[in-house]
Amino acid sequence: MERYFDEELKGLHKDILAMAIMAQEAIFKSIEALKNRDAQQAKEILDYDDKIDQLELDIDEKCIDLIARHQPMAGDLRFITTGMKINAELERIADLAVDIAERVLELADKPILKPLIDIPKLSTVAQNMIHEAIDAFVKKDVELAKKVVLSDREADNLRNLVQDELINDYMSKDPSTASRAVPLLLIARHLERICDHTTNIAEDVIYMVEGKVVRHHPEELES
Amino acid sequence: MERYFDEELKGLHKDILAMAIMAQEAIFKSIEALKNRDAQQAKEILDYDDKIDQLELDIDEKCIDLIARHQPMAGDLRFITTGMKINAELERIADLAVDIAERVLELADKPILKPLIDIPKLSTVAQNMIHEAIDAFVKKDVELAKKVVLSDREADNLRNLVQDELINDYMSKDPSTASRAVPLLLIARHLERICDHTTNIAEDVIYMVEGKVVRHHPEELES
Repeated sequence: MERYFDEELKGLHKDILAMAIMAQEAIFKSIEALKNRDAQQAKEILDYDDKIDQLELDIDEKCIDLIARHQPMAGDLRFITTGMKINAELERIADLAVDIAERVLELADKPILKPLIDIPKLSTVAQNMIHEAIDAFVKKDVELAKKVVLSDREADNLRNLVQDELINDYMSKDPSTASRAVPLLLIARHLERICDHTTNIAEDVIYMVEGKVVRHHPEELES
Repeated sequence: MERYFDEELKGLHKDILAMAIMAQEAIFKSIEALKNRDAQQAKEILDYDDKIDQLELDIDEKCIDLIARHQPMAGDLRFITTGMKINAELERIADLAVDIAERVLELADKPILKPLIDIPKLSTVAQNMIHEAIDAFVKKDVELAKKVVLSDREADNLRNLVQDELINDYMSKDPSTASRAVPLLLIARHLERICDHTTNIAEDVIYMVEGKVVRHHPEELES
């Protein structure tokens, strides 16, 4: 029984990893669709999201079933409930990739506004953060989780760069750019929101391991 | 033991209700701060959010403790895990009220762009949806939860109205409006995102009661 439970916990690791890889893939593809101005590729992300939603439900069911059948002790119970939270965050992240794809569809038939530099950078930051946050969960690695929480500042800075440039250098100078600048500005915000969800994952990992709340107090991690 | 468990479940009801009322209050105050262009009121929402974050953590702890001590059967277990999800959604909703307050701070020292009509409407829709979604959870009322899911369209429509007006009637005509129009556009999006989180709550209630997944398929509710 005990050993079987361990096997099932490992299965939960694998499922969460699969979910994370799918979420990263959705972000990567949405930014590729943006770079290529490819409406077809953007639409594929909408279909892909159905699969991610289904996996989220399956993982959630497995977690509740695991608790109901094995009635785990405090440490394992907390690991499973943290898994449920991470699962929900990953589903939200995938939804934000869909939001990006929708903005790509709005832009696909309009002329290019500007070369993309900071948005692809922000996308890379987001994907790396997800990779590290999930790694931290599986390995119960608090130091790695703390690194993720601190990375969120870089995401905030990049988002602000994109936003300030679009408002000051484009919309405020030439009103005809507004309908193209707003979707780009929103994409930067979707990516930054993805980083926020990833920060939540890392904070949940820290709480799971240390019982210490770092939410909204990242400055304490630096001491 | 059994009776004590029922008392604790009722306590969970009360805590979630308190959390919902605080989230509604945060939204209400953030839009009041916007209407009054009141930076002080906007800053108070940032402090208020610390209290909401603490309550979220307390509720989460209580839920895990409840599961660990009572090892509840399937129905009660699902009620508690749904409570944990709703708790997390309400915390995200309060975070979005903070996002609105931050936009109010950006706008506070700039001239008024336009009279506010649809944004306060959208705020009222959001607050009503939260009230009904939590009512549906406590009463396990599936019909009410379905009504909430369908209300989300009204929120989407109002968000689109605000966005189209700001882009077409302001930013595209007069570039000097961009730095004031963008925060308003984002506030409409924050409110619509609040409605999305509330829809998640209603969908969780439907799943808790019926075991039926409605996420992303609201059209099925109308048949």
